[in-house]
Amino acid sequence: MSWNTFGRVLRYTSWGESHGPALGAVVDGCPPGLALSEADIQPFLDARRPGQSKFTTQRREPDQVKILSGTFEGKTTGTPISLMIENVDQRSKDYSEVAKAYRPGHADYAYEAKYGIRDYRGGGRSSARETAARVAAGAVARLVIPEVTITAYVAEIGGDAVDPANFDAAEIGNNPFFCPDAKAAKRWEALVDEARLAGSSLGAVVECVASGVPAGWGAPIYAKLDADLAAAMMGINAVKAVEIGAGFGAARLSGEENADEMRPGEDGPEFLSNKAGGIAGGISTGQPVVCRVAFKPTSSILTPRETITSEGEATEISTKGRHDPCVGIRGTPVVAAMMALVLADHKLLHRAQCG
Amino acid sequence: MSWNTFGRVLRYTSWGESHGPALGAVVDGCPPGLALSEADIQPFLDARRPGQSKFTTQRREPDQVKILSGTFEGKTTGTPISLMIENVDQRSKDYSEVAKAYRPGHADYAYEAKYGIRDYRGGGRSSARETAARVAAGAVARLVIPEVTITAYVAEIGGDAVDPANFDAAEIGNNPFFCPDAKAAKRWEALVDEARLAGSSLGAVVECVASGVPAGWGAPIYAKLDADLAAAMMGINAVKAVEIGAGFGAARLSGEENADEMRPGEDGPEFLSNKAGGIAGGISTGQPVVCRVAFKPTSSILTPRETITSEGEATEISTKGRHDPCVGIRGTPVVAAMMALVLADHKLLHRAQCG
Amino acid sequence: MSWNTFGRVLRYTSWGESHGPALGAVVDGCPPGLALSEADIQPFLDARRPGQSKFTTQRREPDQVKILSGTFEGKTTGTPISLMIENVDQRSKDYSEVAKAYRPGHADYAYEAKYGIRDYRGGGRSSARETAARVAAGAVARLVIPEVTITAYVAEIGGDAVDPANFDAAEIGNNPFFCPDAKAAKRWEALVDEARLAGSSLGAVVECVASGVPAGWGAPIYAKLDADLAAAMMGINAVKAVEIGAGFGAARLSGEENADEMRPGEDGPEFLSNKAGGIAGGISTGQPVVCRVAFKPTSSILTPRETITSEGEATEISTKGRHDPCVGIRGTPVVAAMMALVLADHKLLHRAQCG
Amino acid sequence: MSWNTFGRVLRYTSWGESHGPALGAVVDGCPPGLALSEADIQPFLDARRPGQSKFTTQRREPDQVKILSGTFEGKTTGTPISLMIENVDQRSKDYSEVAKAYRPGHADYAYEAKYGIRDYRGGGRSSARETAARVAAGAVARLVIPEVTITAYVAEIGGDAVDPANFDAAEIGNNPFFCPDAKAAKRWEALVDEARLAGSSLGAVVECVASGVPAGWGAPIYAKLDADLAAAMMGINAVKAVEIGAGFGAARLSGEENADEMRPGEDGPEFLSNKAGGIAGGISTGQPVVCRVAFKPTSSILTPRETITSEGEATEISTKGRHDPCVGIRGTPVVAAMMALVLADHKLLHRAQCG
Repeated sequence: MSWNTFGRVLRYTSWGESHGPALGAVVDGCPPGLALSEADIQPFLDARRPGQSKFTTQRREPDQVKILSGTFEGKTTGTPISLMIENVDQRSKDYSEVAKAYRPGHADYAYEAKYGIRDYRGGGRSSARETAARVAAGAVARLVIPEVTITAYVAEIGGDAVDPANFDAAEIGNNPFFCPDAKAAKRWEALVDEARLAGSSLGAVVECVASGVPAGWGAPIYAKLDADLAAAMMGINAVKAVEIGAGFGAARLSGEENADEMRPGEDGPEFLSNKAGGIAGGISTGQPVVCRVAFKPTSSILTPRETITSEGEATEISTKGRHDPCVGIRGTPVVAAMMALVLADHKLLHRAQCG
Repeated sequence: MSWNTFGRVLRYTSWGESHGPALGAVVDGCPPGLALSEADIQPFLDARRPGQSKFTTQRREPDQVKILSGTFEGKTTGTPISLMIENVDQRSKDYSEVAKAYRPGHADYAYEAKYGIRDYRGGGRSSARETAARVAAGAVARLVIPEVTITAYVAEIGGDAVDPANFDAAEIGNNPFFCPDAKAAKRWEALVDEARLAGSSLGAVVECVASGVPAGWGAPIYAKLDADLAAAMMGINAVKAVEIGAGFGAARLSGEENADEMRPGEDGPEFLSNKAGGIAGGISTGQPVVCRVAFKPTSSILTPRETITSEGEATEISTKGRHDPCVGIRGTPVVAAMMALVLADHKLLHRAQCG
Repeated sequence: MSWNTFGRVLRYTSWGESHGPALGAVVDGCPPGLALSEADIQPFLDARRPGQSKFTTQRREPDQVKILSGTFEGKTTGTPISLMIENVDQRSKDYSEVAKAYRPGHADYAYEAKYGIRDYRGGGRSSARETAARVAAGAVARLVIPEVTITAYVAEIGGDAVDPANFDAAEIGNNPFFCPDAKAAKRWEALVDEARLAGSSLGAVVECVASGVPAGWGAPIYAKLDADLAAAMMGINAVKAVEIGAGFGAARLSGEENADEMRPGEDGPEFLSNKAGGIAGGISTGQPVVCRVAFKPTSSILTPRETITSEGEATEISTKGRHDPCVGIRGTPVVAAMMALVLADHKLLHRAQCG
Repeated sequence: MSWNTFGRVLRYTSWGESHGPALGAVVDGCPPGLALSEADIQPFLDARRPGQSKFTTQRREPDQVKILSGTFEGKTTGTPISLMIENVDQRSKDYSEVAKAYRPGHADYAYEAKYGIRDYRGGGRSSARETAARVAAGAVARLVIPEVTITAYVAEIGGDAVDPANFDAAEIGNNPFFCPDAKAAKRWEALVDEARLAGSSLGAVVECVASGVPAGWGAPIYAKLDADLAAAMMGINAVKAVEIGAGFGAARLSGEENADEMRPGEDGPEFLSNKAGGIAGGISTGQPVVCRVAFKPTSSILTPRETITSEGEATEISTKGRHDPCVGIRGTPVVAAMMALVLADHKLLHRAQCG
């Protein structure tokens, strides 16, 4: 099956391949009357854009978004918003080897097994270029939830984690790693460069915090806020794990330690901790919504790996194209976008049922 | 919002509260002609049933399932299968305190904030009793995927993990912990009993492996097999984290280490490792589908915790009802059921598009 | 495929066969805090109940509804509302002939062709008994739209139409035909009785008017209010046509005649006519929503008809069970229920997007 | 709400306004491996294209479709197919009057009431230009159901019907009316021209027949084949009524007359009539699927009509833009496209459940 629509009442449908003429997203269900122009979307795409440092792929894509429908005189009309990003820097010649054999760890083999046909150029539909559509759609979703502030950053690369004591949100935009710890960012320069030069790649952990989410968003039992977030994050290219709040750590706490005790506060309850990551019973509690997302290392690496050809013969492959040595880095704006999309959808869903 | 339907073409809708007359699930989209009677469902419910050892809640529920529709002469007809389980051992008197104040870590406050009304008896709809409906529905889903074998077990309780060297699938049914390591099971007896007697509770990690899944199931981009699994697992009561394959560990591997190299095999490719957990690009690869799920410790504990009343006053609460000292244990059959439901749905979805 | 859920945010899932132990509906997404008890539902079921006159089937079903979940202390909690109606008067012996051969015009053959298995007792899932679940769910939907008044009535039986000049809403409940014209009701007594005694059956046209619907409900382009109504009505057993407003008549009007001219009114615009039936562009205009629905004559008739057996042999069949001589009559409360379900869903959908 | 996606497993999402830069559709869930190029789609768009005779709007739109994604080397890959049609001949100056007042019978007022903002240029999203996206998507759907032949034609304009005795499918393409009766086509020339010159407009009835549909497609109870068709057709701009098979006529038949008797045939049963229009119990019977659709006269007419301004003041309006004197004519390829989309979706749905 193919299922390229995300969301329940605020929905978006993405399309496009790495080496086709363009990619895009259609955002449907957006409230009317919101001010929206390309300028509201472009900064988020710019943050995700490749080729901005030696630590990301050297493919040069301006990723200029065009709004093709859904606005009138600078405002959303409530009709579907079609966003398009043209592909500019495709180089199909790089991919001849991928046409013949499957990259281990990549989606090549699975797509072939499923569909019996595969656009191998740049990974086709399985390329992380698709996440540009998510980021564009996420920028629209942000307009739906002005009360929410979303912060995403890389917390760990190749096992080297930031020091929470050094956390400084202002640092996130100051380095090519979305790193909130200036010292870690310094270390990562060497770490990522080393992997890049070695023809290897690194994994990463991205954290995302949404503050300002009021208590009450979420749709139990089967569209819980955390369940929808888990799907949203796990569906990002290269993601292999998702935690909410204390996550796996919660499995090692006692009931007393894990309880987020409450005291009366100025505006509703005050919580003494946030092990729950802002979600209980699938519903937001009013605390910040916190999730952690694990990205595997890029599958496309220069180091040769054993594999098979599409005819089933043994061979070796080394991927020579332009690739991110650590996909988790550019995954950061994508994580933030998915957070925005899930929250905006749940805001509208909550309003539907509870007014 | 309230969203009590799960799945895309094989869908089920669950209903019921902890202390209502009954709970149930309506399974829709099931292929016709499958042999189905209560006897196909009951063993799975029995595995999840409370009151079977001192390590689980002492609530006595026979959890007898009745099939109210969807079969004829012992076979599914393709019409919706209504499954009902009557509640027998509700004791509403136990819950007077919960009516007045919110249990920290529990869904009490979030439900109240969302709906402005809350069935506090036994947690109402947020009770883990709802998972009986999942297990019943999962038993039907298993009939749809006879080619798949699903094994779920507890891998860790309160930070004490099984030793992979001791893994013995035959042990899982031999102890009250679904533990595949006889030595760990022995240790857990003391561990869980201690927590129980101390009025505390423990978290757990559950692992689930589905073998026999052919390559090609999954629906990219927004209903990827791993994304749907993540939602399915994260939506289970008390779950806070989900990993596929190497999960967070993948974020610490190099690209070479993480690549699941392939060799030609008897029936399609042979993989030299399974870091991917059987899923690449959201599509099954033919390897076992592997996931790990973290359960937080039970929120309802005897140890008093600070909280607020529904009027917003400061108070303390200790939950005196009958509760599982470790919800992860009985969560194990639920994890297996959700795995079955996701896989069965994707088998049918794949068939829809690819024949 | 089997698809037993209706609606988008206010959704209900129905289940059950004519001769199973029970049938029911699970209503999901209902706003919390609405007063709801069986007494709010039963009158609508009573209106649809069989065996109340000689003009409907003689099957005796009390159709007592039970609420199994979703309410607490007499109010909806926002969780799924499970409604169950037990079948009491099944007589399977009546159906032996139907087991062997297909009733012309009935769903027998189509179900067999689709599923390869068929619960032939009373038509199984294709029985109009399923509409009891719709009526029960519709009663819940009405609570969501207290601003709306829904009136449904039979406008025509066997080609004999009411005279609009005689229309009296108060008459609808005074005769066994939901007929708003006392004179027509008198004529229909003879007409329907004649058909019944002749072992024949008659078709009918039902009209339904919903007043009080504010302007703005509807979800263009593919969930327009009229498109959803058309699906809702066409999906009722035996329905073969649906009109909104002037319907087929609009195809014979000039643009000038069809234009519903507007004048300024006390509360928004005043329309000089309602050819549109209260819907333009898929969105309600504030005028009454009007639809007309055609029911074919009951397929189960005593008069022998040529058919084939399930082995494909030629035979004749005459259906001896207890059947409505005119299914359109008892279809009237069903039409009203579907109107309520569509409008309630769209009220919530509108609130989701537009606040 | 806004809901611009149609279908269940074969889904498409349309976007675009009359006077925006482009419009389009994203077709998702299409089986892989089907030969597809622009040449497969263009002929259907050409049939719907405006400006080809004096009997349709004089807007000149080449309606050239571009495939932006979802194919590789001329074949579908199973990923979303993005189709785009650029708008060429917008003349916004024509619409100044519509900006200020609502056209009676048009969606102007309803959109304003719903969204509080309205792209009045050419009707914005409510323009029949949106149906180009349906036609393009429908062309893809046809590739999914090569076993089916779809024929659509105008059966009646302004109350003047074709004579079934003159029916000649070969005539449909020979006149500007999609008329299968050469004599009627002749009469309609005068009829439509007269309406056009008078600044008026006419309604029409379109019939559509799909032959080759095997028995078994359809998804009871709430996604019946006829229910989905009814929604598909009623959702087309200007449609006010839908009939399946005998439709309203069935309400005037006796049970004997309405029964489609069966005899054993070469390949399955042979039906002696097709009052059911090829659908029973929401499932196809193997007979041709037949529906009739009523189009109201175009709302945009030159003759002045009473209306109100957006400030609520009384005024008169006459619409001077370029409009179809009879929208039903160009609605014919749209009806055929919606038939294809519904059938293709149900073919895949059926395969999902029943293999």
